[in-house]
Amino acid sequence: MFLFTLKPGERVRQSLEQACLDWDIPSAAVSGIGGLRQVELGYWRASQADYQRKTLEGSFELLTLLGNISLYQGRPFAHLHVTLADENLQVVGGHFFEATVTATVELFLTPCDPIERHWDAQIGAALWNLEPG
Amino acid sequence: MFLFTLKPGERVRQSLEQACLDWDIPSAAVSGIGGLRQVELGYWRASQADYQRKTLEGSFELLTLLGNISLYQGRPFAHLHVTLADENLQVVGGHFFEATVTATVELFLTPCDPIERHWDAQIGAALWNLEPG
Amino acid sequence: MFLFTLKPGERVRQSLEQACLDWDIPSAAVSGIGGLRQVELGYWRASQADYQRKTLEGSFELLTLLGNISLYQGRPFAHLHVTLADENLQVVGGHFFEATVTATVELFLTPCDPIERHWDAQIGAALWNLEPG
Repeated sequence: MFLFTLKPGERVRQSLEQACLDWDIPSAAVSGIGGLRQVELGYWRASQADYQRKTLEGSFELLTLLGNISLYQGRPFAHLHVTLADENLQVVGGHFFEATVTATVELFLTPCDPIERHWDAQIGAALWNLEPG
Repeated sequence: MFLFTLKPGERVRQSLEQACLDWDIPSAAVSGIGGLRQVELGYWRASQADYQRKTLEGSFELLTLLGNISLYQGRPFAHLHVTLADENLQVVGGHFFEATVTATVELFLTPCDPIERHWDAQIGAALWNLEPG
Repeated sequence: MFLFTLKPGERVRQSLEQACLDWDIPSAAVSGIGGLRQVELGYWRASQADYQRKTLEGSFELLTLLGNISLYQGRPFAHLHVTLADENLQVVGGHFFEATVTATVELFLTPCDPIERHWDAQIGAALWNLEPG
């Protein structure tokens, strides 16, 4: 299991995917907590086979950063979802595109068997190549 | 660590518990993300020692599916809680009964020492047999 | 991976940090679910380099308890964030200070390389000593 922490001002996805390249981690489970601002989230619309995107202003507690690293188009790709709390403890969340660290982010990366993604044109998303269970 | 993915239209609990039977995984930690619809959730009411159930219509980002597999009445049993985001990024959640997959579900199962559950009549729930820590 | 469960009425942080002392677990990933009441949460205010605290009355489904154990000032210290659902399935959450167990809490502790924290006066928080990734 790899430990991974980020400094104030760093970009989460960019840093995490770069670390997976640097450390040679093609596939892993990801989980962590911390604090974020300028959070770009998505909600997947099946009817349009695409994400509706929204960037949240303000600072949030990062309550959960959960998902996985897999290989997509030959590079480590992070598929992550987040929940966030504001100062009133209200929670929002969604598919995670990118965000900036406030105080810290503390993550665990647990390497696993290689996962590759392929584009599924019917569903309109990049899915694991594994045979579904 | 086992990887587990589900296709659109599959039922999550049914498929997961069947996979644990097929793969001989009596006990495990579970964590994952994805997309769900027709989600049946519960809120445990201590006063009635039972869950208040509600089924949510619409499609949701599955932000966290967290919990465990244990043996209850001789079979793998999934105790899972979820958080879900709607198109406005608002989050709801609860004890997870069942749901249908929208685009995908991507899970990790980490096997652990065997956990058995017993019915605790005083509390009104099926609890781990472990001595509490 | 260590399994850890708590009984009704137990205090979560106190019991978890004591278990890490008793079991000699200086550092670990933590994840779990359960039910909580009297939950004291925080929201970190960068401008004041401190947490705004609030205690929630009522009983909640504990949807996610995520974070880590590290060594701070020579003792196991739990840095945890939670999401909680009320009877209407609405979700709140934040930095976790302490709470009382309702029916149960079911946790996994995955030991990892030792993590130590230091006080970062500039940020106003106790951060991992690791070189940021």
